[in-house]
Amino acid sequence: MNQSEMCPRFEKAVDILSKRWVALIVFQLLNGSQRFSEIEAALPNLSGRVLSERLKELELEGVVKRDVIPETPVRIEYSLTDKGMALAPILGEISKWATDWIDPSFLD
Amino acid sequence: MNQSEMCPRFEKAVDILSKRWVALIVFQLLNGSQRFSEIEAALPNLSGRVLSERLKELELEGVVKRDVIPETPVRIEYSLTDKGMALAPILGEISKWATDWIDPSFLD
Repeated sequence: MNQSEMCPRFEKAVDILSKRWVALIVFQLLNGSQRFSEIEAALPNLSGRVLSERLKELELEGVVKRDVIPETPVRIEYSLTDKGMALAPILGEISKWATDWIDPSFLD
Repeated sequence: MNQSEMCPRFEKAVDILSKRWVALIVFQLLNGSQRFSEIEAALPNLSGRVLSERLKELELEGVVKRDVIPETPVRIEYSLTDKGMALAPILGEISKWATDWIDPSFLD
């Protein structure tokens, strides 16, 4: 993308966010730290395999963190980092736009 | 997506926006109405074929409008509808997030 006249940081942000399911996973994690199975249950059309991939990618991007809680059995929880929490205003603006401009009758 | 607990309008908005190149095309059109060749020049990594597809899809979604200006030769210009202009705050928040959180040294 180096020839583009647009800001490469904007492009990188769009690349991260536009990957399928990313916005919905982040939206779900805005509710607080959750186990894999809780995120999975909230997004029933997302397969466990893809959720696991996305969580790993988001961890590498520094958007999601994975905490291992030393209980028996060990509990693993996913939450947003500060970088991930900072996505909230973007998702808020998407919600606003959707409310104003997407006609619910066209969804079926 | 009908089983999802999340707002289906939010999902629809994310579907529109997360399609490859859509955010960058809309960002470019925020500069005002433009000919196909101008948008193409601003996004050198986007092929003409894909740009043409995206513009058609965005026209169907009511985000972009296509005006035929009766000159000789006929001039065709693309611009954002009100629905498309209303995406500006989302792109603004993405820019802010990118500036705050994407380290430019990681882009190369």
